Amino acid sequence: MLTASICTIGDEILIGQVTDTNSAHIATALEEAGIHVNSMVSVGDSRDAIEGALKRELSSSDIVITTGGLGPTKDDITKAVLAEFSGSKGYKEDPGQLEMVHKILKGRGLDVLPINLAQAQVPEKAEVIVNKLGTAPIMVFRGLLGKASLYALPGVPHEAVGAIPAVLGDILAHFKPESIVHRNIMVYGIAESALSEKIAFWEDALPADMHLAYLPNTLTGIRLRLSAYGGEKEAQERRLEAKMEELKGIIGPLVYAGEDSTLEASVGKLLKERGETVSCAESCTGGEIAHLFTSVSGSSAYFLGSVTSYAISVKEKVLGVPASVIEENGVVSSEVAAAMAEGVRRLTGSTYSVATTGLADKDGDGKNPGGTVWIGVSGPRGTRTVTYLYKNDRARNIERFAASALNFLRLYMENQL
Amino acid sequence: MLTASICTIGDEILIGQVTDTNSAHIATALEEAGIHVNSMVSVGDSRDAIEGALKRELSSSDIVITTGGLGPTKDDITKAVLAEFSGSKGYKEDPGQLEMVHKILKGRGLDVLPINLAQAQVPEKAEVIVNKLGTAPIMVFRGLLGKASLYALPGVPHEAVGAIPAVLGDILAHFKPESIVHRNIMVYGIAESALSEKIAFWEDALPADMHLAYLPNTLTGIRLRLSAYGGEKEAQERRLEAKMEELKGIIGPLVYAGEDSTLEASVGKLLKERGETVSCAESCTGGEIAHLFTSVSGSSAYFLGSVTSYAISVKEKVLGVPASVIEENGVVSSEVAAAMAEGVRRLTGSTYSVATTGLADKDGDGKNPGGTVWIGVSGPRGTRTVTYLYKNDRARNIERFAASALNFLRLYMENQL
Repeated sequence: MLTASICTIGDEILIGQVTDTNSAHIATALEEAGIHVNSMVSVGDSRDAIEGALKRELSSSDIVITTGGLGPTKDDITKAVLAEFSGSKGYKEDPGQLEMVHKILKGRGLDVLPINLAQAQVPEKAEVIVNKLGTAPIMVFRGLLGKASLYALPGVPHEAVGAIPAVLGDILAHFKPESIVHRNIMVYGIAESALSEKIAFWEDALPADMHLAYLPNTLTGIRLRLSAYGGEKEAQERRLEAKMEELKGIIGPLVYAGEDSTLEASVGKLLKERGETVSCAESCTGGEIAHLFTSVSGSSAYFLGSVTSYAISVKEKVLGVPASVIEENGVVSSEVAAAMAEGVRRLTGSTYSVATTGLADKDGDGKNPGGTVWIGVSGPRGTRTVTYLYKNDRARNIERFAASALNFLRLYMENQL
Repeated sequence: MLTASICTIGDEILIGQVTDTNSAHIATALEEAGIHVNSMVSVGDSRDAIEGALKRELSSSDIVITTGGLGPTKDDITKAVLAEFSGSKGYKEDPGQLEMVHKILKGRGLDVLPINLAQAQVPEKAEVIVNKLGTAPIMVFRGLLGKASLYALPGVPHEAVGAIPAVLGDILAHFKPESIVHRNIMVYGIAESALSEKIAFWEDALPADMHLAYLPNTLTGIRLRLSAYGGEKEAQERRLEAKMEELKGIIGPLVYAGEDSTLEASVGKLLKERGETVSCAESCTGGEIAHLFTSVSGSSAYFLGSVTSYAISVKEKVLGVPASVIEENGVVSSEVAAAMAEGVRRLTGSTYSVATTGLADKDGDGKNPGGTVWIGVSGPRGTRTVTYLYKNDRARNIERFAASALNFLRLYMENQL
C-alpha cells in the first residue's frame, strides 16, 4: 500500500488564525488515486519543528506533501530547511519559475524586486514543477531518508489546490498505487442512518473488492461513493456502473445526480436543458437560495432573480401576498409560502419559482417552533408546499432550509410532486 | 511558557471527507489565553496511530487536547485507547453525563438504547466535564507521562466548540499561563501590505511587551489584534486601550469597529441604534449581501428585504431601472447601480439601500473586464456610486463585491461620502 503524509507549515495555523483547508483537498485527491494518508501534521515556522516533523513523516510514509512556508518574507523558512535536509550544496535558478515570476508581477502591475526574483531560486537537489498561480515554485525532492519523496507546495489555498493535478501526475509517474476507480451518486432528503438501513441488504452483498463511502454535507445531501480496488480499469468501471444502477433503483427519486454534483447545479442543468427559467422569493433563507443559484457559472441563462422579503410590507407590496392571507394564516404558513412563490413567478415571468418562509432562530413565534420552514414551489402544474422542522443553529438552519427548497423544486421539476 | 498540542482523531479527516475546523477554534482560544500551541496532528481511528501520537505529543507539551473518536459506534476507539493509556483498571458511570444522555435522546424523541447508555461510562482515571450538547462526555486525564494533562473532546464541531469554555476554565484552574490581554479593531478597504506600511512607525514604537497581529479575511477585512503580555490585567487593558486609540486616529475612517466584529453586524448595529432600515438590490452578488445581513440574529429589525435582479427584465420591471439607462450605459455601470439602489429603496421604503452590478466571472463583457463591480448606495443625502476591480475566482469575487458594498454603505452612513 502506497502511503502519504501531509504536513502544513506556518504559525498562522497554530494560532488558529487560519483554518487549514489544503490538507483535506490534498487528502481527497490522494485517496481517490489509491494512496493511503497515514497522518496530517501542522507545525510552526521553526527549523526544529519542521525538521522533526519531516524526519518522522518521511520515515513512516512513502510520500510527504508539505504546504506553506515558501513566501518571500523572512518568517518563511521551509525552503532553507529543505535545502539543508536534502543535502543540497547550494541554490540554482529555475528558468521556468523565473519567467512566471515576471509574468505574474507584470500582470499585477508591480515592479519585480530582488525579493521576488529570489523565489525562482531553489535548492540544488530540488526538481521544479512550475507554479502558474503564484511566485513560489512547487519543489520535488526524491530519495530522502533512502526512498521517500517530498513535494513542497505553496500554502496559499488556491495555489496549493491548483498544484494538486501536477503533483498527482508526478506521483503516478514515479509510484504505482493500487488501482482504484470510483463512481458517485448524490442523494437528498434522507438521514444517513435511514439511508444506511434502506440499502443495507445491497451493501452487505457487495463484492469483496468494492467499498461504499457515505459523504454527507448540509447543502448537498449525501454523496455515495462506490470504489473498486485492483483489476482492469474499464472492466471495473462497467461493474461499478452496473452496481450503481441497482442502487439508484433501490433509492429511487431521492437520487438527484448520477455523478458528484450539487442541488443548485443539478437543477440548473435541468433548466438549461429544457430552456426554462426560475426565480425565488426568500424570507427566512434571506438570499441563500439566490446565492446558491448564482454561485454556478452560467446561471444567468436560467436564473432570473429573487426577492428577499424580510419585512411583511415587502411581501405584500413587492410580491403581492394579500394582507388577508398573512392575517389569517400567519407569516410562517403554507398559504404565505404559496403566495410568495406565485408572486415572484408573476413578477419575473419565470417558468418555476421557489419560496421560503420560516424561523431560522431557535425561538418560535408562538405558533410555530424555531426551526420551522414552509417551502412553496410554483410552476406550470400549479403550486405545491411542504414544511420541515430542523433543530440546528441559525446558520445551519438557513442552509438546510435552502437545500430543502432546492430539492423540493427538483422533485416538482421531475414530476415527483 | 505553557504549551499545548491539538490532536484530531478520525479516518474521515485523513481521507479528506471532512475539513478539520475544530483545531483552529481550539487554537484561537488557547492562544488568546496565553497558551502556546506547539503542533496539531490528525491520525486515523487506529490504536497504534492514536497511541503513537499521544505519546509524542504528551512528552512535548503540557496539555494535549484531542477531538473525535468518542462516538458510540465500533469504529470509535479513542475512549478504549485512553483507558489503557491512562492505566485505568476499568470503567465507571458518570451520573451527570448519564442524565444528559437521557435528556438529549428524549428531546430528540428517541429511545435510550444500551449503546447510548455506554456513552456515560468513562475510564476509571477520567474526570468528566459534562457535555451538554451531545452524549459523549468530555474527559480529563491528569498526570499522564508524569505531568501532562489530556482533554478528550467530541469531534462533532458544535460540540467541540461548545466544550472550549469549560475546558479552558479547567486549564486555568490547574495551570498558570503567562497573563495576556488583547484588544481588537476592524479595518476594511486597504491591503495588508499597505496598512502595514501606513502604521509601521507606530508599530515599530510599540513597547516590548506588546505585539500586533494582522488577521485578514475576505468578508470582514483585517482584524488588528494588539496583545500585551505579563503585568497586571486592568493596567494592561488601559495601556492597550490608549494604544488602540492612537492607532484608530492613524488609520481613520477605514476602521469600522473597535472590537471583533463583521461589516454586516457593524452596519446592523448602527441601523438599530438609529431606528433606520436598509434594503438591497443585487445583480452580480446574487443574494450574498442579503444572506450576510440576515445571518445576523435580530436583523429583521432593520433589514426590509432585497431584490436579486439577475435578468435585465427584473431590473426594469421590479426595480424600475429605465431601459434607456441600461441601453445607454450598459448593465455594468455607475448609472445602473444608482438606479437599482434608488429603485429598491423606493420599492421597500427603506432609509438606505445598496446595489451591485458587475461581472463575477473572469470573462469580461467586451466593455468591462471580468471582476468589475459597480456599487450604488442611496439614502436621505442622495445616491453615491463607486467601482472596484478584483482578480479572483467567481466565489471569491462575489465575497469581495459584497464586503465592499457593505463597507461603502457604512461610509455613507457615517457621512464619509
